[in-house]
Amino acid sequence: MITLIGVVAATCTTISFVPQVIQIQKTRNVSGISLSMYGILTTGVGLWMLYGFLIRDMAVFFANLITFALAMAVITLTVKERLSLAKKVVHQV
Amino acid sequence: MITLIGVVAATCTTISFVPQVIQIQKTRNVSGISLSMYGILTTGVGLWMLYGFLIRDMAVFFANLITFALAMAVITLTVKERLSLAKKVVHQV
Repeated sequence: MITLIGVVAATCTTISFVPQVIQIQKTRNVSGISLSMYGILTTGVGLWMLYGFLIRDMAVFFANLITFALAMAVITLTVKERLSLAKKVVHQV
Repeated sequence: MITLIGVVAATCTTISFVPQVIQIQKTRNVSGISLSMYGILTTGVGLWMLYGFLIRDMAVFFANLITFALAMAVITLTVKERLSLAKKVVHQV
């Protein structure tokens, strides 16, 4: 039972970033998103990956690998959208 | 050394939501934030708290308690801002 709670917990925290990635791809709206948050988060998740690898815990490694990819997707999409918006502003000026 | 990596990883993933909370409080801009993401994340973090409590691992419990509070703050501020925006729209109509 305790293990099941851990598995559900890990699944939730890992897949939680999926709706954010989908929302950005659909709406292209990234204005309220904090890049500092995703920067610190990605660093932390990357270190969790390293930790999982070093202690040979593949569950920790792979769960964080997925979160790392999703958080990186949020960062990439946000930066891309902001650069594209900045370009539009420059063209308007 | 491995323990230190784990501690830095946990610190990063726990405090990463602080800049998002500060940004919302400063700018009141929540338009790009996915509430589905924070809903799933808060469920997962809540289950991690329960898991930490059940296996008597107070580090897991308290780290997730902080993340839980920060994610709840993002949800509360986002819902509050969206309700306030919706009210303004209703008044304009």
